[in-house]
Amino acid sequence: MNPANSALLTDLYQLTMMQGYHESGMKEVAVFEFFVRKLRPGRGFLMAAGLEQALEFLEGLHFSPEEMAWLASTGRFSKGFLASLETLRFTGDVHAMPEGTVFFPNEPILRVTAPIAQAQLVETRLINLLHFQTLIASKAARMTLMAPGILLVDFGLRRAHGAEAGLLAARASYIAGFTGTATVQAGMQFGIPLFGTMAHSFVQAHDGETLAFEHFAHAQPDNVVLLIDTYDTEAAARKVVALAPQLERQGIRIKGVRIDSGNLADHARQVRKILDAGGLNHVTIFASGDLDEYILRDMFASGAPVDGLGVGTRMDTSSDVPYLDCAYKLQEYAGKARRKRSEGKQTWPGRKQVYRSYDADGRMASDVVTLEKDVQPGEPLLMPMMRGGQRIAAVTLADIRNHAATNLARLPEALRRLQEPYNYQVEIASALHELAAQVDRNLHYDKEE
Amino acid sequence: MNPANSALLTDLYQLTMMQGYHESGMKEVAVFEFFVRKLRPGRGFLMAAGLEQALEFLEGLHFSPEEMAWLASTGRFSKGFLASLETLRFTGDVHAMPEGTVFFPNEPILRVTAPIAQAQLVETRLINLLHFQTLIASKAARMTLMAPGILLVDFGLRRAHGAEAGLLAARASYIAGFTGTATVQAGMQFGIPLFGTMAHSFVQAHDGETLAFEHFAHAQPDNVVLLIDTYDTEAAARKVVALAPQLERQGIRIKGVRIDSGNLADHARQVRKILDAGGLNHVTIFASGDLDEYILRDMFASGAPVDGLGVGTRMDTSSDVPYLDCAYKLQEYAGKARRKRSEGKQTWPGRKQVYRSYDADGRMASDVVTLEKDVQPGEPLLMPMMRGGQRIAAVTLADIRNHAATNLARLPEALRRLQEPYNYQVEIASALHELAAQVDRNLHYDKEE
Repeated sequence: MNPANSALLTDLYQLTMMQGYHESGMKEVAVFEFFVRKLRPGRGFLMAAGLEQALEFLEGLHFSPEEMAWLASTGRFSKGFLASLETLRFTGDVHAMPEGTVFFPNEPILRVTAPIAQAQLVETRLINLLHFQTLIASKAARMTLMAPGILLVDFGLRRAHGAEAGLLAARASYIAGFTGTATVQAGMQFGIPLFGTMAHSFVQAHDGETLAFEHFAHAQPDNVVLLIDTYDTEAAARKVVALAPQLERQGIRIKGVRIDSGNLADHARQVRKILDAGGLNHVTIFASGDLDEYILRDMFASGAPVDGLGVGTRMDTSSDVPYLDCAYKLQEYAGKARRKRSEGKQTWPGRKQVYRSYDADGRMASDVVTLEKDVQPGEPLLMPMMRGGQRIAAVTLADIRNHAATNLARLPEALRRLQEPYNYQVEIASALHELAAQVDRNLHYDKEE
Repeated sequence: MNPANSALLTDLYQLTMMQGYHESGMKEVAVFEFFVRKLRPGRGFLMAAGLEQALEFLEGLHFSPEEMAWLASTGRFSKGFLASLETLRFTGDVHAMPEGTVFFPNEPILRVTAPIAQAQLVETRLINLLHFQTLIASKAARMTLMAPGILLVDFGLRRAHGAEAGLLAARASYIAGFTGTATVQAGMQFGIPLFGTMAHSFVQAHDGETLAFEHFAHAQPDNVVLLIDTYDTEAAARKVVALAPQLERQGIRIKGVRIDSGNLADHARQVRKILDAGGLNHVTIFASGDLDEYILRDMFASGAPVDGLGVGTRMDTSSDVPYLDCAYKLQEYAGKARRKRSEGKQTWPGRKQVYRSYDADGRMASDVVTLEKDVQPGEPLLMPMMRGGQRIAAVTLADIRNHAATNLARLPEALRRLQEPYNYQVEIASALHELAAQVDRNLHYDKEE
């Protein structure tokens, strides 16, 4: 079993609530929806991601014998309830926006329809999976928009929050338009293209930079990208020029240089001049170090001669917005719409659909959130993805990446820029307002029972 | 194999550099150190964590047959180099600060001494493991300091960056003084005490709040903590008072209530009054929702009657400082000290030790960073942890937690508060200055070779 898909990746309260449902005989179907309540400054839109891992988790959901034994050993749970866990599988339906879809606050991107115990248990891990990849795809999309046509590589594993974060950040950024990743396991697991050359330690381990460059070129003759900022960037660029003819005689062509410190745009300009003067016009410049979408925008606005970028920490941690205000909420139980009214956290009840309209140029114009049964004009964004616990169709990562690219191309111009405030109209349909009022009238919460 | 300990949890450049070392016959011992370059605003000290998982990773390091086959299939690597990977194990030494130790910038918290290929390969995952738990323990310690004697529970799995982040955040916050976690798998895996009651969905699924409270009390008679903010917090508190006598007659005692929205301190005061007036002085108040150390400080400064707190997203993502400026750098190769001079990223060369002095009250007074062989007065903080690839001693989580508590108790008063600027003296010894100057003179990097 993959421990990352353990049924115990949940909050204790899911189990104590499930025991409550069990002892009270509550077994009806519940409808939960996952959505983002509001955007934080620095985000004008979000990109849905993580569905693939969410569906895998649901398909494989079960308690292992070892987990069952441990649960019993805690003394917290009744025998009858534990017996019900032993055979528990996910038998419900899932509707969702395909990964790579652009979405906005109050729009559910995933709906679970299942017996309440199942739908409750999976809350924690579903949020954990959908939140993180959506967070990273949304951040990476902003960088993709700022660097069209530029080679973008995820460098973030080391400062990602754990191994799974690093792997899933590689996947989410690839969905959003990155060219590839440095994370080897992401290459093996997801087939994402891999990029990588050398670190400062390789240069430092040698008694001279030129010797390090020679050793690297001989060991990786098809992938000669040389890191030139270990000691003095421009001096190292001149060493590259001096070394090139000798390597050429050996049939080895230098492909690029990498700069990882200082003012990247300024160094790139200096290095470009040195390389060009040395006849190395074909050698590309790759830059890395503390990059984000704002630095990318300024770098290309200034015309910096940079051909590729390694983006790490600020993307893999979504450092300016490290979490989204998202929730997975009960919208219906036993056929009755439900609603939470906690201060600042009210929800819209019922099973919902989102319809999107486009303008004459094919750009997104506005969305309507309404009840599933209240059909509206426009493109419905939520689609059936799983029925009775079985997935409906397989999607490739390439399909998802294309869908994301199409979505980014259809963003209204204002959302493509990094200029706030962002405005995009998301209408809450009258059907939802009416249902909310009806739920408020019907429920007993405003009376002392 | 635990995929979270795969040898492929690395950057591609580690493998391309290793091929470079292999083809050039570079097999000498390298010394790498992990340290934080500087603190970001919002942190006056850091707490070392993650060593246990780092040592586990090193002990188990190997390439599986499946990984070997995949590496060969990429066509990037030579047969001889691949053969060397097949038998690769970690055979080096590790020195480190024990988990729970308070530390400061420029102080190595871990040193690896191993043949260069091994020491290079493990860079990515070692940083990934040490960075994240150190990040979270450092954030959690700030909350522990603001809420002495208060029950603090980690609620963060859902918005942590993936499963591993959630599990390791539970561990890191427990080290830093949290009472427990809601994450069930962290209870099973690490033996951390578990806490959890009910969510809004449990209340919403019932046709009335009182019925939900009754069902929950009967299913969990020893753990009756009732969530009272689903609709109207004070009204629900009155329902709790009304329900209590009936439950008492059934031998069930209400243990606490939880508030999860609105102004938590104000609601706690209102609810305390209602509970006390209803004879429920023994019922505790637990609060949760968007908490961080600043809110905790203000909450207790205002005397809010809160007995326990659930802390989630802002801790598990360390949201104000979601990453540390940390590095794992080559300090010595083949017996010669090494140094990187990239702009803004210069390193101190050589194998280092940190000595800490205390004042008359036993509080930390100052640290000195120097060469291992330059023995200084004070307490040496780095200790041998692994020799020849074998761990030297097992440590329990309880030991680590005690060590962390001792460290927090010995913080100087200024560092216990949330008031910047923080000042703590970390001296770089003259032995390091001299070695750096010597390395600069000896290396060839300032000449055109």
